[in-house]
Amino acid sequence: MPHPDPQLALVDRQSIVNVLVGYCNALDRMDLDELASLFTEDCHVAYGPDEKLQSRGSAALKSSLERMWRWARTSHHLSNVLVGFDDADNARAASYVLAWHERPDGTTATVFGQYRDRLVRSGGRWLIAERKMLMNGSDQGFTLELFELDRRDPPAGWTPPDLGSVGGR
Amino acid sequence: MPHPDPQLALVDRQSIVNVLVGYCNALDRMDLDELASLFTEDCHVAYGPDEKLQSRGSAALKSSLERMWRWARTSHHLSNVLVGFDDADNARAASYVLAWHERPDGTTATVFGQYRDRLVRSGGRWLIAERKMLMNGSDQGFTLELFELDRRDPPAGWTPPDLGSVGGR
Amino acid sequence: MPHPDPQLALVDRQSIVNVLVGYCNALDRMDLDELASLFTEDCHVAYGPDEKLQSRGSAALKSSLERMWRWARTSHHLSNVLVGFDDADNARAASYVLAWHERPDGTTATVFGQYRDRLVRSGGRWLIAERKMLMNGSDQGFTLELFELDRRDPPAGWTPPDLGSVGGR
Repeated sequence: MPHPDPQLALVDRQSIVNVLVGYCNALDRMDLDELASLFTEDCHVAYGPDEKLQSRGSAALKSSLERMWRWARTSHHLSNVLVGFDDADNARAASYVLAWHERPDGTTATVFGQYRDRLVRSGGRWLIAERKMLMNGSDQGFTLELFELDRRDPPAGWTPPDLGSVGGR
Repeated sequence: MPHPDPQLALVDRQSIVNVLVGYCNALDRMDLDELASLFTEDCHVAYGPDEKLQSRGSAALKSSLERMWRWARTSHHLSNVLVGFDDADNARAASYVLAWHERPDGTTATVFGQYRDRLVRSGGRWLIAERKMLMNGSDQGFTLELFELDRRDPPAGWTPPDLGSVGGR
Repeated sequence: MPHPDPQLALVDRQSIVNVLVGYCNALDRMDLDELASLFTEDCHVAYGPDEKLQSRGSAALKSSLERMWRWARTSHHLSNVLVGFDDADNARAASYVLAWHERPDGTTATVFGQYRDRLVRSGGRWLIAERKMLMNGSDQGFTLELFELDRRDPPAGWTPPDLGSVGGR
């Protein structure tokens, strides 16, 4: 973390966390103007490999996220935030999100995901310049084709342990 | 955030986060003495519009939250914390909570909610003077009539996009 | 918190949070080398009372956590972090985790738990020297016999309030 000062880095880190949280909170209120203001004008945002799930520019992002009105209610819980600095005005962040969605018919869909972001300081504010979303997993109610987390495979010959004596199955 | 010093603000911010987390942790252990000690004596706490879900004063809050013993187990996961300062001794906080509850019969109820708090520094400690809880949503197991988050409606004429080609429904 | 400097304590606190988050993220990627590097060589880790759920040493921990490959996907969401310092090189942390697990057959298991950690600064890095996991609760898909949180019982004679008028049941 080549930020010149570890204590100033904490101030910048908190500003960045506030942006990541602000995205979630604005999305749940569907305040898309506020949401778009957290991104650079020429941002790139990708939720999945298909171009329908990608946006170039904050105006396009705002328009694209109108799709969230297909849900009646949502709740995006942000955690596991890691921030690193390339220099005093450029940062990378990784965070987890538990995203709960409810359809008008009462059925639900939950995503256990991650955001991978590049942020820049612009005009004294931190803005998201690039965002990629990954999915650790989801319940069966969620069917959109997001990017998936790359998880290591077990070594050749691995066999599951017998945890029956401690309740495992 | 008119806190006089951005780095001191981080120290105060952390103290405030510790209070918000302390509430969750004390509630899950049902240590209501510890929980009540995080509020001002004359606090006002409102979980919903009905007076049965509101308390005036930390003693009344403690007594009211005995209702949580109707659950066999709970888990309150706090995230999305935003803190702003009115001055060095007065702050506002917003946070998210994923609150899981299990009844003695094994059925469960999950709330996806928010706390909106006003805090004051008193005797060197930050205390919650006002708390309002809002519900982003809940599963069908949770039926208590909490306040609901105000979410924007779609613009007139909005129609859901066709996301079928990327797995959406 | 006898850390000599409250602002330096924040820098150390953030380093410690990064270790706790790093554990979750490495576990979900099943990068067990990275995970093991977050513990002291002679660490003690206990997920439950049975010795099958305990490890002595980071090499044994790494080997033991190969059991997580019995899940097809996992997501560990960390929150509610509290950190206290015994001195500048020794700390205690408590945190919450919402741990979602999916089996190869698509069935899931969710734990609402806590980590209780002792950390030491070693060679300029914070490492976990002792970890105990507790369970606040779990859904019925999770059956492993972890430690359980100690929750207070209601006072003698407590009876559930009638919340029927505000939707409670």
